[in-house]
Amino acid sequence: MKHFLSTGHLSLSQIEELLDAAMAFKANRRVTNELAGRSVALVFLNPSLRTRASMQIAVYELGGNPVLIEPGSTSWSIEYQDGVVMDGGKTEHIAEFVRVLSRYVSAIGVRTFAELKDWAHERTDPVLSAFAKYATVPVINLESAMHHPCQAMADMLTIRERFVPEKKRVLLTWAWHPKALPMAVPNSFALAAAQSGHDITIANPEGYDLDDELISQVQRCAESAGGSCRTVTEPEIAFEEADVVYAKSWAPAAFYGQPDAAHASELRDQWMVTADRMARTANGIFMHCLPVRRNVIVTDEVLDSPNSLVIDEAENRLHVQKAILASLFK
Amino acid sequence: MKHFLSTGHLSLSQIEELLDAAMAFKANRRVTNELAGRSVALVFLNPSLRTRASMQIAVYELGGNPVLIEPGSTSWSIEYQDGVVMDGGKTEHIAEFVRVLSRYVSAIGVRTFAELKDWAHERTDPVLSAFAKYATVPVINLESAMHHPCQAMADMLTIRERFVPEKKRVLLTWAWHPKALPMAVPNSFALAAAQSGHDITIANPEGYDLDDELISQVQRCAESAGGSCRTVTEPEIAFEEADVVYAKSWAPAAFYGQPDAAHASELRDQWMVTADRMARTANGIFMHCLPVRRNVIVTDEVLDSPNSLVIDEAENRLHVQKAILASLFK
Amino acid sequence: MKHFLSTGHLSLSQIEELLDAAMAFKANRRVTNELAGRSVALVFLNPSLRTRASMQIAVYELGGNPVLIEPGSTSWSIEYQDGVVMDGGKTEHIAEFVRVLSRYVSAIGVRTFAELKDWAHERTDPVLSAFAKYATVPVINLESAMHHPCQAMADMLTIRERFVPEKKRVLLTWAWHPKALPMAVPNSFALAAAQSGHDITIANPEGYDLDDELISQVQRCAESAGGSCRTVTEPEIAFEEADVVYAKSWAPAAFYGQPDAAHASELRDQWMVTADRMARTANGIFMHCLPVRRNVIVTDEVLDSPNSLVIDEAENRLHVQKAILASLFK
Repeated sequence: MKHFLSTGHLSLSQIEELLDAAMAFKANRRVTNELAGRSVALVFLNPSLRTRASMQIAVYELGGNPVLIEPGSTSWSIEYQDGVVMDGGKTEHIAEFVRVLSRYVSAIGVRTFAELKDWAHERTDPVLSAFAKYATVPVINLESAMHHPCQAMADMLTIRERFVPEKKRVLLTWAWHPKALPMAVPNSFALAAAQSGHDITIANPEGYDLDDELISQVQRCAESAGGSCRTVTEPEIAFEEADVVYAKSWAPAAFYGQPDAAHASELRDQWMVTADRMARTANGIFMHCLPVRRNVIVTDEVLDSPNSLVIDEAENRLHVQKAILASLFK
Repeated sequence: MKHFLSTGHLSLSQIEELLDAAMAFKANRRVTNELAGRSVALVFLNPSLRTRASMQIAVYELGGNPVLIEPGSTSWSIEYQDGVVMDGGKTEHIAEFVRVLSRYVSAIGVRTFAELKDWAHERTDPVLSAFAKYATVPVINLESAMHHPCQAMADMLTIRERFVPEKKRVLLTWAWHPKALPMAVPNSFALAAAQSGHDITIANPEGYDLDDELISQVQRCAESAGGSCRTVTEPEIAFEEADVVYAKSWAPAAFYGQPDAAHASELRDQWMVTADRMARTANGIFMHCLPVRRNVIVTDEVLDSPNSLVIDEAENRLHVQKAILASLFK
Repeated sequence: MKHFLSTGHLSLSQIEELLDAAMAFKANRRVTNELAGRSVALVFLNPSLRTRASMQIAVYELGGNPVLIEPGSTSWSIEYQDGVVMDGGKTEHIAEFVRVLSRYVSAIGVRTFAELKDWAHERTDPVLSAFAKYATVPVINLESAMHHPCQAMADMLTIRERFVPEKKRVLLTWAWHPKALPMAVPNSFALAAAQSGHDITIANPEGYDLDDELISQVQRCAESAGGSCRTVTEPEIAFEEADVVYAKSWAPAAFYGQPDAAHASELRDQWMVTADRMARTANGIFMHCLPVRRNVIVTDEVLDSPNSLVIDEAENRLHVQKAILASLFK
């Protein structure tokens, strides 16, 4: 089964092919027939604006029928563990949920955030893996505990639209946020940027490193694609000469299992993206996956500046997802 | 940008043109292609039956794709204030929410009730205005704090279907309700009836007047269209010789900021629409936007009588909305 | 008006015709035009996976437009009683809800579970009956307090696919569940199996009998179709030589009005479907409507065995519902 779970499963030429297809969809936006007569389940275990709207529209514009499913709300709550005696609060086992859906639809998109309880377990993406295991149709990762590959593809398209496809200095910079957030977006952005051969700087406070194994994968990918990856803990250094500034808050592994743990408040001003910091870049562009907390993650001044590409980036979700969906039915 | 926010922005000939188009859609109900290939976002910050169902079907019957978005539930909660430090409970700023949606869809319908907290602020329709400010596609008001123009257009169609298009005696009569309700429906009904040149009576208990400025606008519109507008506080007088009885509960400005304030219970029987009161009319028709509390706003006897047009009125929502949507893409 | 409320209204030849149509839809799955240009309201007062997804897809594959409505959540809460003074928590009367919907759509599907409060009242299906009373378009029962005919039709299709259409030994066997569940599924399965002429055994603990009148109807139907119906209270006897084992938990009438009443815990092991019990059957197939509690209703071993047809049974929901919908617009 051909799933779309992470860009890590793709070669650079496969990534380039998807981006080419996305640009073609963007250049000529209309209803086509790649999914004609096909229904696609969009399973949301968490709120969503961009993913939910853009996936519905992507399926529609490819001629298909999106079917939204919200387990625990409009649909039943799901049990993920195998072999369990189901006498608790969970109503339906994923084995039935996914096998039944596979009979109804031609593909299953699924969004399931990290629970932020146990990093060692969640880093293996148990929920997404269960979907992939039981599905007899393609599964598309719409953000899991570990990855958000549709976002990363939209990010790569946004960078490619701005720059000729050559090596750039890409900064992934941590930001303070009032509550702990998952690592999927920074993981997938770093990985896709590495696969694309950029020189990546990952900047975060001490103790806020991304997952060791993910960082190793990013370094291997960057090097084999002619790029590099370094990590720094000083924001001032990080912004120097950057072409791309990608801001994101995340909670490191140590926060998992401590739902009320707060980031130290002094980190907020130390890491906010400001005009002063952007002035250190090489006229760098500003990116963020959205939703973004204004004047917490980034100042209004930067977010509303001409170098802020966040709306283009969000729009590109639609076009890359059309390319990904179409690729699954070629 | 061509928005549809209130009938106040329309000339009488524009209103007539929309009603003609609505009657044509009603006479020949089928799928057409005015919205072919286009997606329309329907943003609901409040529950809805008629608006939600009829807008989905209107978009479908015009060949398009409705996309439902429920901020705070399936989607993120929205911050409306500019310049704010977003470290509280709101996740996404309307500036991003609306600009991103504008990239995905061809029009945005939005329902956002009055919060009933601060009339001076809410009467300026700050939420709807923010949608209109940031949108780069047409915005359709599906009920705001101040107006419900789709309802008012359906009301005018219902009156026109029953009577030849001439001046009628139209009564807008207040009713008791167990909780405070917004003024959008009475505001928009009075305004559209005035624009259409009817003789309008607005009847409500003392202390329950609609907004001063709105009443002035209604009076100006009525006079310039050859009609009139008077306000009375005696229900018995109000019903005399009326051709149209339009019942609606609303909370006046004084109730804003007092969420637990209750209407005096004796007002209930004093203002309920009964068969006795309808007998004073000129064989008048009964109208209400629905949902309606039976035997609270109006008796079963009146609501179930042949002169009750509430179901036709609700059906007409569909046809006028098709006309409005189609007009935005001419 | 041609409603689809229970298989009890159908002759055996009408059932056979629907199953033939379902098999034809299954053999050639594609988008057709039986519902072209038509919208169908799908009203859900309870969570659902299979019904919700399969009905949306059924309407889409017949060329129509599904419109989901969730009273009490995205839509208003509904009052069902006639003549009531609506000054409480319910916002809209079913008389308006259904008559308005009838203007917008070509058919109304409705799911409304038993409330488990008052069996004498709920066994008359008051909510479903109110929908049927006020609707001017066909109403399809997507599970009511008393019946789940779409499920029963999918069950009959599943049995017919496995066996040549001849008399089989069909066991409907009660199972323990952590909370009280309605009787709609066992009622409709027993009735449809009886109408199809099978030899039915209904097995449940003492005190857990299905409704007397329903059992009488099942017995009459079975006999007139050349089959039989017996009830037993011994699980070991029940499984002997069964061709079909259909497991389901239900709460008998005595549990209505006692929301916290629990089934005696020793009933769990006494009634779980195990490999040992299945070994007593005539190589019987295992069926369940899903969602199913693994290792509570049935062991993993039985549910994951080749004789378990639960996924086919769920898939067949789609095909029979297409047949039912299409039959309403012939």
